[in-house]
Amino acid sequence: MRQFIVVGHDAPTTPDFSLDDLPGAGRLDLLARCVTSSLLLSHGIREDVRTHLVLGDTVTVTVDGATVQRLNPDERSTAALVQNALEQRGEAVGHVAVEPSPGVSLRRLGLAETLDVVAGDGQLCVLHEDGTPAPDLAPPTDPVFLLSDHRAFTDAELSLADGHADVRVTLGPERLHADQAITVAHSWLDTEGFGNFHGSL
Amino acid sequence: MRQFIVVGHDAPTTPDFSLDDLPGAGRLDLLARCVTSSLLLSHGIREDVRTHLVLGDTVTVTVDGATVQRLNPDERSTAALVQNALEQRGEAVGHVAVEPSPGVSLRRLGLAETLDVVAGDGQLCVLHEDGTPAPDLAPPTDPVFLLSDHRAFTDAELSLADGHADVRVTLGPERLHADQAITVAHSWLDTEGFGNFHGSL
Repeated sequence: MRQFIVVGHDAPTTPDFSLDDLPGAGRLDLLARCVTSSLLLSHGIREDVRTHLVLGDTVTVTVDGATVQRLNPDERSTAALVQNALEQRGEAVGHVAVEPSPGVSLRRLGLAETLDVVAGDGQLCVLHEDGTPAPDLAPPTDPVFLLSDHRAFTDAELSLADGHADVRVTLGPERLHADQAITVAHSWLDTEGFGNFHGSL
Repeated sequence: MRQFIVVGHDAPTTPDFSLDDLPGAGRLDLLARCVTSSLLLSHGIREDVRTHLVLGDTVTVTVDGATVQRLNPDERSTAALVQNALEQRGEAVGHVAVEPSPGVSLRRLGLAETLDVVAGDGQLCVLHEDGTPAPDLAPPTDPVFLLSDHRAFTDAELSLADGHADVRVTLGPERLHADQAITVAHSWLDTEGFGNFHGSL
Protein backbone atom coordinates (compact mmCIF):
# COMPACT_ATOMS: atom_id res chain seq x y z
CA MET A 1 0.00 0.00 0.00
CA ARG A 2 1.04 3.57 -0.68
CA GLN A 3 -0.12 6.36 1.62
CA PHE A 4 0.20 10.13 1.43
CA ILE A 5 -0.14 12.59 4.30
CA VAL A 6 -0.52 16.20 3.17
CA VAL A 7 -0.23 19.01 5.70
CA GLY A 8 -2.70 21.79 4.90
CA HIS A 9 -1.50 24.67 7.02
CA ASP A 10 -4.21 27.15 6.11
CA ALA A 11 -6.90 24.64 5.22
CA PRO A 12 -10.45 25.06 6.47
CA THR A 13 -11.59 22.96 9.40
CA THR A 14 -15.23 23.93 9.02
CA PRO A 15 -17.44 23.65 5.93
CA ASP A 16 -18.21 27.35 5.58
CA PHE A 17 -16.24 28.08 2.44
CA SER A 18 -17.23 28.65 -1.16
CA LEU A 19 -16.57 26.05 -3.83
CA ASP A 20 -16.24 29.02 -6.21
CA ASP A 21 -13.02 30.16 -4.51
CA LEU A 22 -10.94 27.14 -3.52
CA PRO A 23 -7.62 29.04 -3.48
CA GLY A 24 -9.22 31.43 -0.99
CA ALA A 25 -10.37 28.47 1.11
CA GLY A 26 -6.88 27.81 2.48
CA ARG A 27 -5.67 26.46 -0.87
CA LEU A 28 -8.21 23.69 -0.94
CA ASP A 29 -7.64 23.60 -4.70
CA LEU A 30 -4.18 22.20 -4.03
CA LEU A 31 -5.41 19.72 -1.44
CA ALA A 32 -8.16 18.52 -3.80
CA ARG A 33 -5.55 17.94 -6.50
CA CYS A 34 -3.45 16.00 -3.99
CA VAL A 35 -6.40 13.66 -3.49
CA THR A 36 -6.99 13.12 -7.19
CA SER A 37 -3.33 12.86 -8.20
CA SER A 38 -2.78 10.24 -5.52
CA LEU A 39 -5.89 8.16 -6.17
CA LEU A 40 -6.88 8.50 -9.80
CA LEU A 41 -5.55 7.02 -12.99
CA SER A 42 -7.04 7.62 -16.41
CA HIS A 43 -10.36 5.78 -16.24
CA GLY A 44 -9.28 4.00 -13.08
CA ILE A 45 -8.49 4.27 -9.41
CA ARG A 46 -5.47 3.23 -7.37
CA GLU A 47 -7.16 0.91 -4.91
CA ASP A 48 -3.98 0.39 -2.89
CA VAL A 49 -3.64 4.06 -1.94
CA ARG A 50 -4.89 5.97 1.08
CA THR A 51 -4.52 9.76 1.30
CA HIS A 52 -4.77 11.82 4.47
CA LEU A 53 -5.33 15.59 4.48
CA VAL A 54 -4.33 17.16 7.78
CA LEU A 55 -6.46 20.30 7.96
CA GLY A 56 -5.27 23.08 10.23
CA ASP A 57 -3.58 20.57 12.54
CA THR A 58 -7.03 19.79 13.91
CA VAL A 59 -8.94 17.47 11.61
CA THR A 60 -7.73 14.74 9.27
CA VAL A 61 -9.80 13.67 6.28
CA THR A 62 -8.80 10.32 4.77
CA VAL A 63 -9.76 9.08 1.32
CA ASP A 64 -9.33 5.36 0.75
CA GLY A 65 -8.89 4.20 -2.84
CA ALA A 66 -10.29 0.77 -2.02
CA THR A 67 -13.71 2.05 -1.03
CA VAL A 68 -14.18 5.64 -2.21
CA GLN A 69 -17.07 6.31 -4.57
CA ARG A 70 -17.98 9.33 -6.68
CA LEU A 71 -14.40 10.62 -6.78
CA ASN A 72 -14.03 12.64 -9.95
CA PRO A 73 -10.88 14.23 -11.31
CA ASP A 74 -11.89 17.87 -10.95
CA GLU A 75 -11.04 20.09 -8.00
CA ARG A 76 -14.55 21.33 -7.27
CA SER A 77 -16.24 17.97 -6.78
CA THR A 78 -13.31 16.70 -4.73
CA ALA A 79 -13.45 19.80 -2.52
CA ALA A 80 -17.18 19.13 -2.14
CA LEU A 81 -16.36 15.69 -0.73
CA VAL A 82 -14.10 17.39 1.85
CA GLN A 83 -16.75 19.99 2.58
CA ASN A 84 -19.34 17.27 3.08
CA ALA A 85 -17.00 15.49 5.49
CA LEU A 86 -16.46 18.70 7.46
CA GLU A 87 -20.22 19.17 7.75
CA GLN A 88 -20.28 16.03 9.86
CA ARG A 89 -17.28 16.81 12.04
CA GLY A 90 -19.60 17.26 14.99
CA GLU A 91 -20.19 13.50 14.89
CA ALA A 92 -16.49 12.74 15.35
CA VAL A 93 -15.73 12.28 19.03
CA GLY A 94 -12.22 11.73 20.31
CA HIS A 95 -10.18 9.78 17.80
CA VAL A 96 -13.10 7.78 16.46
CA ALA A 97 -13.67 8.24 12.74
CA VAL A 98 -16.90 9.21 11.04
CA GLU A 99 -17.42 8.17 7.43
CA PRO A 100 -19.62 10.84 5.85
CA SER A 101 -19.44 9.21 2.43
CA PRO A 102 -18.08 5.86 1.24
CA GLY A 103 -14.31 5.78 1.54
CA VAL A 104 -14.08 9.29 3.01
CA SER A 105 -13.50 9.42 6.76
CA LEU A 106 -12.83 12.23 9.22
CA ARG A 107 -11.06 12.12 12.54
CA ARG A 108 -10.20 14.83 15.02
CA LEU A 109 -6.47 14.34 14.66
CA GLY A 110 -3.65 16.81 14.15
CA LEU A 111 -0.37 15.95 12.47
CA ALA A 112 1.22 14.36 15.55
CA GLU A 113 -1.69 11.98 16.09
CA THR A 114 -2.02 11.21 12.39
CA LEU A 115 1.65 10.26 12.24
CA ASP A 116 1.16 8.08 15.32
CA VAL A 117 -1.70 6.27 13.59
CA VAL A 118 -0.34 6.02 10.04
CA ALA A 119 3.46 6.13 10.06
CA GLY A 120 3.80 2.65 11.54
CA ASP A 121 2.09 1.15 8.50
CA GLY A 122 5.26 1.33 6.44
CA GLN A 123 8.26 3.50 5.67
CA LEU A 124 7.73 7.21 6.34
CA CYS A 125 9.31 9.19 3.51
CA VAL A 126 9.40 12.94 4.05
CA LEU A 127 9.39 14.73 0.69
CA HIS A 128 11.80 17.58 1.27
CA GLU A 129 14.29 19.58 -0.74
CA ASP A 130 17.12 18.51 1.56
CA GLY A 131 16.38 14.83 1.06
CA THR A 132 18.29 12.09 -0.70
CA PRO A 133 17.62 12.06 -4.46
CA ALA A 134 15.12 9.32 -5.25
CA PRO A 135 17.38 7.67 -7.86
CA ASP A 136 19.89 6.98 -5.10
CA LEU A 137 17.35 5.06 -3.01
CA ALA A 138 15.71 1.70 -3.33
CA PRO A 139 11.98 2.34 -3.74
CA PRO A 140 10.38 1.97 -0.31
CA THR A 141 8.01 -0.80 0.67
CA ASP A 142 4.58 0.37 1.82
CA PRO A 143 5.66 4.02 1.69
CA VAL A 144 3.94 6.72 3.70
CA PHE A 145 4.86 9.97 1.96
CA LEU A 146 4.63 13.15 4.01
CA LEU A 147 4.21 16.38 2.06
CA SER A 148 3.50 19.99 2.85
CA ASP A 149 1.08 22.24 0.98
CA HIS A 150 2.21 25.58 -0.49
CA ARG A 151 4.04 26.39 2.73
CA ALA A 152 7.29 24.82 3.92
CA PHE A 153 7.21 22.42 6.85
CA THR A 154 7.71 24.20 10.16
CA ASP A 155 10.62 23.15 12.36
CA ALA A 156 8.12 21.62 14.77
CA GLU A 157 6.57 19.53 11.99
CA LEU A 158 9.94 18.33 10.76
CA SER A 159 10.90 17.42 14.29
CA LEU A 160 7.68 15.42 14.67
CA ALA A 161 8.28 13.71 11.34
CA ASP A 162 11.87 12.87 12.13
CA GLY A 163 10.63 10.95 15.14
CA HIS A 164 8.99 8.53 12.71
CA ALA A 165 10.87 9.05 9.48
CA ASP A 166 12.89 6.46 7.72
CA VAL A 167 14.18 8.84 5.11
CA ARG A 168 13.92 12.29 3.56
CA VAL A 169 13.54 12.11 -0.21
CA THR A 170 13.81 14.68 -2.96
CA LEU A 171 12.30 13.83 -6.33
CA GLY A 172 14.15 16.17 -8.65
CA PRO A 173 15.93 19.46 -9.06
CA GLU A 174 12.77 21.55 -9.48
CA ARG A 175 10.40 22.68 -6.73
CA LEU A 176 7.09 20.99 -7.50
CA HIS A 177 3.59 21.58 -6.24
CA ALA A 178 2.52 18.92 -3.74
CA ASP A 179 0.14 17.33 -6.24
CA GLN A 180 2.86 17.21 -8.88
CA ALA A 181 5.22 15.64 -6.34
CA ILE A 182 2.63 12.94 -5.66
CA THR A 183 2.42 12.17 -9.38
CA VAL A 184 6.20 11.92 -9.61
CA ALA A 185 6.38 9.75 -6.47
CA HIS A 186 3.86 7.35 -8.01
CA SER A 187 5.86 7.34 -11.24
CA TRP A 188 9.04 6.56 -9.31
CA LEU A 189 7.40 3.47 -7.83
CA ASP A 190 5.40 2.51 -10.94
CA THR A 191 8.40 2.55 -13.23
CA GLU A 192 10.78 0.59 -11.02
CA GLY A 193 12.26 -1.77 -13.56
CA PHE A 194 10.32 -0.06 -16.34
CA GLY A 195 11.80 -0.09 -19.82
CA ASN A 196 12.50 -2.78 -22.37
CA PHE A 197 8.86 -3.73 -22.53
CA HIS A 198 5.71 -2.15 -23.84
CA GLY A 199 3.63 -0.47 -21.21
CA SER A 200 0.67 1.86 -21.26
CA LEU A 201 0.71 5.60 -21.03
CA MET B 1 12.11 24.82 -25.09
CA ARG B 2 9.48 22.25 -24.18
CA GLN B 3 6.06 22.38 -25.81
CA PHE B 4 2.87 20.44 -25.21
CA ILE B 5 -0.05 20.04 -27.60
CA VAL B 6 -3.19 18.68 -25.95
CA VAL B 7 -6.09 17.52 -28.10
CA GLY B 8 -9.40 18.40 -26.46
CA HIS B 9 -11.92 16.36 -28.40
CA ASP B 10 -15.04 17.58 -26.62
CA ALA B 11 -13.70 20.95 -25.55
CA PRO B 12 -15.76 24.09 -25.97
CA THR B 13 -14.96 26.41 -28.87
CA THR B 14 -17.21 29.20 -27.64
CA PRO B 15 -17.24 30.88 -24.21
CA ASP B 16 -20.77 29.91 -23.24
CA PHE B 17 -19.98 27.42 -20.51
CA SER B 18 -20.15 27.59 -16.73
CA LEU B 19 -17.02 27.80 -14.61
CA ASP B 20 -19.05 25.90 -11.98
CA ASP B 21 -19.11 22.77 -14.14
CA LEU B 22 -15.79 22.35 -15.91
CA PRO B 23 -16.13 18.57 -16.39
CA GLY B 24 -19.43 19.29 -18.15
CA ALA B 25 -17.69 21.87 -20.34
CA GLY B 26 -15.97 19.22 -22.46
CA ARG B 27 -13.59 18.29 -19.66
CA LEU B 28 -12.13 21.75 -19.43
CA ASP B 29 -11.04 20.78 -15.91
CA LEU B 30 -8.53 18.39 -17.44
CA LEU B 31 -7.35 20.91 -20.03
CA ALA B 32 -6.92 23.57 -17.34
CA ARG B 33 -4.80 21.15 -15.32
CA CYS B 34 -2.73 20.45 -18.43
CA VAL B 35 -1.94 24.17 -18.63
CA THR B 36 -0.94 24.44 -14.99
CA SER B 37 0.98 21.17 -14.79
CA SER B 38 2.99 22.16 -17.84
CA LEU B 39 3.72 25.75 -16.84
CA LEU B 40 3.75 26.02 -13.06
CA LEU B 41 6.26 25.06 -10.44
CA SER B 42 5.82 25.68 -6.73
CA HIS B 43 6.08 29.46 -6.46
CA GLY B 44 7.45 29.69 -9.98
CA ILE B 45 6.78 29.34 -13.66
CA ARG B 46 8.52 27.36 -16.39
CA GLU B 47 9.40 30.20 -18.75
CA ASP B 48 10.73 27.86 -21.42
CA VAL B 49 7.41 26.06 -21.93
CA ARG B 50 4.58 26.74 -24.37
CA THR B 51 1.31 24.80 -24.16
CA HIS B 52 -1.27 24.53 -26.92
CA LEU B 53 -4.86 23.39 -26.31
CA VAL B 54 -6.53 22.25 -29.53
CA LEU B 55 -10.22 22.80 -28.85
CA GLY B 56 -12.68 20.83 -30.94
CA ASP B 57 -10.23 20.70 -33.86
CA THR B 58 -11.21 24.30 -34.57
CA VAL B 59 -9.45 26.70 -32.25
CA THR B 60 -6.03 26.50 -30.59
CA VAL B 61 -5.32 28.44 -27.41
CA THR B 62 -1.63 28.80 -26.58
CA VAL B 63 -0.21 29.76 -23.20
CA ASP B 64 3.40 30.92 -23.21
CA GLY B 65 5.35 30.57 -19.97
CA ALA B 66 7.66 33.42 -20.93
CA THR B 67 4.94 36.03 -21.03
CA VAL B 68 1.79 34.73 -19.32
CA GLN B 69 0.50 36.71 -16.36
CA ARG B 70 -2.12 35.94 -13.74
CA LEU B 71 -1.79 32.17 -14.20
CA ASN B 72 -2.81 30.57 -10.93
CA PRO B 73 -2.66 26.88 -10.05
CA ASP B 74 -6.39 26.26 -9.72
CA GLU B 75 -8.64 24.92 -12.47
CA ARG B 76 -11.31 27.60 -12.30
CA SER B 77 -9.10 30.64 -12.86
CA THR B 78 -7.20 28.83 -15.62
CA ALA B 79 -10.46 27.89 -17.32
CA ALA B 80 -11.46 31.56 -17.02
CA LEU B 81 -8.34 32.51 -19.02
CA VAL B 82 -9.47 30.10 -21.75
CA GLN B 83 -13.02 31.43 -21.57
CA ASN B 84 -11.74 34.97 -21.89
CA ALA B 85 -9.70 33.96 -24.94
CA LEU B 86 -12.76 32.35 -26.54
CA GLU B 87 -14.73 35.54 -26.00
CA GLN B 88 -12.39 37.22 -28.45
CA ARG B 89 -12.32 34.48 -31.06
CA GLY B 90 -14.27 36.75 -33.41
CA GLU B 91 -11.13 38.88 -33.69
CA ALA B 92 -9.04 35.98 -34.97
CA VAL B 93 -9.09 35.97 -38.76
CA GLY B 94 -7.44 33.24 -40.79
CA HIS B 95 -4.35 31.95 -39.02
CA VAL B 96 -3.49 35.27 -37.39
CA ALA B 97 -3.37 35.08 -33.60
CA VAL B 98 -5.17 37.32 -31.17
CA GLU B 99 -3.74 37.78 -27.68
CA PRO B 100 -6.69 38.37 -25.37
CA SER B 101 -4.47 38.48 -22.29
CA PRO B 102 -0.69 38.57 -21.86
CA GLY B 103 0.83 35.27 -22.90
CA VAL B 104 -2.49 33.73 -23.93
CA SER B 105 -3.14 33.65 -27.68
CA LEU B 106 -5.86 32.15 -29.84
CA ARG B 107 -5.73 31.06 -33.44
CA ARG B 108 -8.30 29.41 -35.67
CA LEU B 109 -6.28 26.25 -36.13
CA GLY B 110 -7.23 22.61 -35.87
CA LEU B 111 -4.80 19.83 -35.04
CA ALA B 112 -3.37 19.51 -38.55
CA GLU B 113 -2.54 23.21 -38.80
CA THR B 114 -1.23 23.37 -35.24
CA LEU B 115 1.13 20.48 -35.97
CA ASP B 116 2.24 22.27 -39.15
CA VAL B 117 3.05 25.38 -37.13
CA VAL B 118 4.55 23.82 -33.99
CA ALA B 119 6.00 20.40 -34.76
CA GLY B 120 8.92 21.77 -36.72
CA ASP B 121 10.21 23.58 -33.61
CA GLY B 122 11.74 20.40 -32.23
CA GLN B 123 11.18 16.67 -31.82
CA LEU B 124 7.52 15.64 -31.90
CA CYS B 125 6.98 13.00 -29.21
CA VAL B 126 3.56 11.35 -29.26
CA LEU B 127 2.65 10.17 -25.76
CA HIS B 128 0.96 6.86 -26.43
CA GLU B 129 0.62 3.50 -24.72
CA ASP B 130 2.24 1.73 -27.67
CA GLY B 131 5.31 3.93 -27.51
CA THR B 132 8.88 3.19 -26.56
CA PRO B 133 9.40 3.32 -22.78
CA ALA B 134 11.00 6.63 -21.86
CA PRO B 135 13.93 5.02 -20.00
CA ASP B 136 14.99 3.42 -23.29
CA LEU B 137 15.24 6.79 -25.04
CA ALA B 138 17.63 9.67 -24.86
CA PRO B 139 15.64 12.67 -23.60
CA PRO B 140 14.63 14.69 -26.64
CA THR B 141 15.93 18.14 -27.48
CA ASP B 142 13.24 20.82 -27.73
CA PRO B 143 10.47 18.26 -27.36
CA VAL B 144 6.95 18.88 -28.62
CA PHE B 145 4.79 16.41 -26.69
CA LEU B 146 1.45 15.50 -28.22
CA LEU B 147 -1.22 14.22 -25.82
CA SER B 148 -4.87 13.38 -25.97
CA ASP B 149 -7.46 14.32 -23.37
CA HIS B 150 -9.68 11.69 -21.73
CA ARG B 151 -10.32 10.11 -25.13
CA ALA B 152 -7.85 8.08 -27.15
CA PHE B 153 -6.35 9.55 -30.29
CA THR B 154 -8.41 8.77 -33.37
CA ASP B 155 -6.75 6.90 -36.22
CA ALA B 156 -6.89 10.10 -38.27
CA GLU B 157 -5.08 12.04 -35.51
CA LEU B 158 -2.40 9.40 -35.17
CA SER B 159 -1.93 9.39 -38.91
CA LEU B 160 -1.53 13.17 -38.88
CA ALA B 161 0.91 12.96 -36.00
CA ASP B 162 2.96 10.22 -37.60
CA GLY B 163 3.56 12.55 -40.53
CA HIS B 164 5.55 14.75 -38.13
CA ALA B 165 6.50 12.44 -35.32
CA ASP B 166 10.00 11.54 -34.36
CA VAL B 167 8.93 9.00 -31.78
CA ARG B 168 6.06 7.53 -29.78
CA VAL B 169 6.84 7.47 -26.07
CA THR B 170 5.22 5.76 -23.11
CA LEU B 171 6.06 7.05 -19.65
CA GLY B 172 5.21 4.09 -17.48
CA PRO B 173 3.09 1.01 -17.02
CA GLU B 174 0.02 2.86 -15.70
CA ARG B 175 -2.50 4.84 -17.74
CA LEU B 176 -2.19 8.41 -16.54
CA HIS B 177 -4.38 11.45 -16.97
CA ALA B 178 -2.97 13.88 -19.52
CA ASP B 179 -2.00 16.39 -16.82
CA GLN B 180 -0.25 13.66 -14.82
CA ALA B 181 1.58 12.57 -17.98
CA ILE B 182 2.80 16.15 -18.46
CA THR B 183 4.16 16.19 -14.91
CA VAL B 184 5.96 12.89 -15.49
CA ALA B 185 7.32 14.08 -18.85
CA HIS B 186 8.76 17.17 -17.15
CA SER B 187 10.24 14.98 -14.44
CA TRP B 188 11.83 12.72 -17.05
CA LEU B 189 13.61 15.72 -18.54
CA ASP B 190 14.28 17.53 -15.24
CA THR B 191 15.94 14.55 -13.63
CA GLU B 192 18.21 13.58 -16.50
CA GLY B 193 21.43 13.00 -14.63
CA PHE B 194 19.69 13.62 -11.32
CA GLY B 195 21.02 11.81 -8.29
CA ASN B 196 24.19 12.00 -6.31
CA PHE B 197 23.59 15.63 -5.53
CA HIS B 198 21.17 17.59 -3.43
CA GLY B 199 18.28 19.10 -5.35
CA SER B 200 15.03 20.70 -4.37
CA LEU B 201 11.68 19.03 -4.08
